[in-house]
Amino acid sequence: MDRVPILKLGDLLIVSIQVDLDDQSVLVLQEDLAAAVVARGAKGVIIDISAVEIVDSFTGRMLATIAAMCRMLDAHAVVVGMRPAVAITLVELGLSLGGVRTALDLEKGVALLNHVGGAGL
Amino acid sequence: MDRVPILKLGDLLIVSIQVDLDDQSVLVLQEDLAAAVVARGAKGVIIDISAVEIVDSFTGRMLATIAAMCRMLDAHAVVVGMRPAVAITLVELGLSLGGVRTALDLEKGVALLNHVGGAGL
Repeated sequence: MDRVPILKLGDLLIVSIQVDLDDQSVLVLQEDLAAAVVARGAKGVIIDISAVEIVDSFTGRMLATIAAMCRMLDAHAVVVGMRPAVAITLVELGLSLGGVRTALDLEKGVALLNHVGGAGL
Repeated sequence: MDRVPILKLGDLLIVSIQVDLDDQSVLVLQEDLAAAVVARGAKGVIIDISAVEIVDSFTGRMLATIAAMCRMLDAHAVVVGMRPAVAITLVELGLSLGGVRTALDLEKGVALLNHVGGAGL
């Protein structure tokens, strides 16, 4: 079970990160995600990190890379479910997750992506 | 990270099972899920098992228990994303997942629950 499943809902993809990802798993996830965005014509990717308790620069970079990759493929990425402690750690580490949109939870992420898609941004 | 995150989308809850769950984790998941159904007034629970490669009687029982629990709380449970090999194994093991509805993927699960909810079943 080392592949993170990618769920499809309408033209959105949902990824829920629940395990500590190592370098290899991150690469696999990024490839799977890029392939899924293209194959399914997804306009948005929602990454749920509500199960993630500890974030380091590796995780931060992974999120930024996925967001950048989605932009290349004409999709938008939103990170949802960030725990308060994780937000504090990210700021303290000086990781601002530049270019990564966030939303409070899955619902708000879906709303954000629908709005963004509708506005043609 | 041993709690399985429960995502909310409208009046549905989505659970994506990605790790091998032991007895304790299953109990925690069942409690969390029951609490979430009540707290959020969810009418449906979707359990994604697309990352699950191996199913045994323990997993089968867990799914059946969650489905029964949801019914008690006036919600419907749907298992989605079952791999072909898992379906074969379940049948070979004689585990028919009685009382558990299944759908091919998240989208079809959502459609099923919306239909079921709309029909008042």
